[in-house]
Amino acid sequence: MNIDGMKCSRCRKPAQHRLPSHNARFCDHCLGIFVRRQAEKAIKQFDMLGPGQKVLVAVSGGKDSLALWQILLELGYQAEGLHLALELGDGSFGEASLAASQDMAQRLGAPLHLMNMAELAGFGVQEIAWANKRSFCSVCGTLKRYQLNKVCLDLGFEVLATGHHLDDEAARLLGNLVRRHQQYLESQWPVLQGAPGAFAKKIKPLCRLRGAEIKSFAKSQGISVAKGACPRSKGATLPHYMDAVRLLEERMPGTTTNFYMGYLEDKGGPPPQPDPAQRCSVCGMPSYADVCTVCRFLANTAERESTKRDALQSPD
Amino acid sequence: MNIDGMKCSRCRKPAQHRLPSHNARFCDHCLGIFVRRQAEKAIKQFDMLGPGQKVLVAVSGGKDSLALWQILLELGYQAEGLHLALELGDGSFGEASLAASQDMAQRLGAPLHLMNMAELAGFGVQEIAWANKRSFCSVCGTLKRYQLNKVCLDLGFEVLATGHHLDDEAARLLGNLVRRHQQYLESQWPVLQGAPGAFAKKIKPLCRLRGAEIKSFAKSQGISVAKGACPRSKGATLPHYMDAVRLLEERMPGTTTNFYMGYLEDKGGPPPQPDPAQRCSVCGMPSYADVCTVCRFLANTAERESTKRDALQSPD
Repeated sequence: MNIDGMKCSRCRKPAQHRLPSHNARFCDHCLGIFVRRQAEKAIKQFDMLGPGQKVLVAVSGGKDSLALWQILLELGYQAEGLHLALELGDGSFGEASLAASQDMAQRLGAPLHLMNMAELAGFGVQEIAWANKRSFCSVCGTLKRYQLNKVCLDLGFEVLATGHHLDDEAARLLGNLVRRHQQYLESQWPVLQGAPGAFAKKIKPLCRLRGAEIKSFAKSQGISVAKGACPRSKGATLPHYMDAVRLLEERMPGTTTNFYMGYLEDKGGPPPQPDPAQRCSVCGMPSYADVCTVCRFLANTAERESTKRDALQSPD
Repeated sequence: MNIDGMKCSRCRKPAQHRLPSHNARFCDHCLGIFVRRQAEKAIKQFDMLGPGQKVLVAVSGGKDSLALWQILLELGYQAEGLHLALELGDGSFGEASLAASQDMAQRLGAPLHLMNMAELAGFGVQEIAWANKRSFCSVCGTLKRYQLNKVCLDLGFEVLATGHHLDDEAARLLGNLVRRHQQYLESQWPVLQGAPGAFAKKIKPLCRLRGAEIKSFAKSQGISVAKGACPRSKGATLPHYMDAVRLLEERMPGTTTNFYMGYLEDKGGPPPQPDPAQRCSVCGMPSYADVCTVCRFLANTAERESTKRDALQSPD
């Protein structure tokens, strides 16, 4: 749709997209150029990837990760996809996510690696959450970070890219400031350095782009994305911080970029590399304790399941 | 109005007020007790006033400063009022503010000192803003802080109290964090220490109370307040940060208190006392430079006015 006879800020053809925080309007073609340039700028600014480097993209099936995958290929990187299927208690959302990821792999002619959280962990997220008396979201997040890192290394990739964008990062920053999570604030940076055999390098090449900009890009490129939100996200607080940032951005355009990029500038550099020397005695992955959080989660779940089985088998 | 057959959390009589962030409901009487207790708690927690101490209350005519004045008297402090009339280009708001302040003085049987910004400064705020190419709000704020401090000392008071509440302070904190105003962050504390003949001690005894709690209190006490907002506040950014904090509080009750009080806790203590030794060579008040900001503002305004007069008088 053309916006009220407006012209593209770049080529003067009819504009389809309005970018208030850049005080710009773009046609489909020039929006693509803008989006790729912003991703490239982030990759250079934060030293994310070398020319043509191999990178694994965590592909959920949503607009951000699918757009990221395409952009990285267009910029000449060897980008393969990894879809980690979660069990969210609602078959249709999971199925749509997988289908959108597979469609994209076909469209891009790029390999997509498929993994299943329940198979990797041996239990469903819900069982693990119950056995450890934790919220679903916190367990899911911990398992996801652990498995994405492990699978990335197992597949021989040094770099893992995720589709987090400026609005995600600004909302997370706001939440960490409001709740004064000093530890999380210290590790907030669009690149986390890797260590061979321990940590994949984590990169967020969309960190300079607004969510709405990526949405417009995905739409203009005809990318078919999984609709809907995670059916388990009801208790999540991040959307509230995202709405607060959106309110400030609407009232004072440019606030999101100034806030997040300014914070990074003041901070000056990435957090120190984590120590990869200490390892979990069970799985061999890096861990602060003798047994890592995930292996503790799994051990507790195994114990609970066996108690349940015993209770069912023993006569009353 | 009674809220849906709910009972007061304190005395079990019908409740009139809901305080979601305290998970409480109060009748008029017990709301008064709660509000006074919170003010007393802030006064003790931050060492604002000694028993029965003399204090000057900056009274605008709005609910917060009028409620504060009453509360300080009820808590046994010798609280007198100071109304500094501003010229905001809209006679009715200024008149209503003055009338509400005078009504309150009569009701409380307490002295109200009346001052006029234009008389104190020699020029209207608008003329000073024009002559110094500054925004109205920034000039008004600078002049107000200067005059409130000076008048307070001239009247022989050591302490100046203002009606800033928790929502004001949390919004200011959020704005300073988002804009990374390190200097303002350092001076954000509910008490700023005084220095004889240079700085009145500045205190904010309502810093533990939400705006809505003070509004309910003012209404339940039948305090008549000046309605409306400053007609010049259109360009102000604080209301946006206030709305963002309100959004977070509505979604996650208790956020405002945890955010602001947690920040103060992490900070650990008040900012260092400003150096009162260096003085403005014109007015004798403390100043970082040889001539203080206000005296520079006034000199520029006088120069501009005399140029204007000359231009009018000289034949073409």
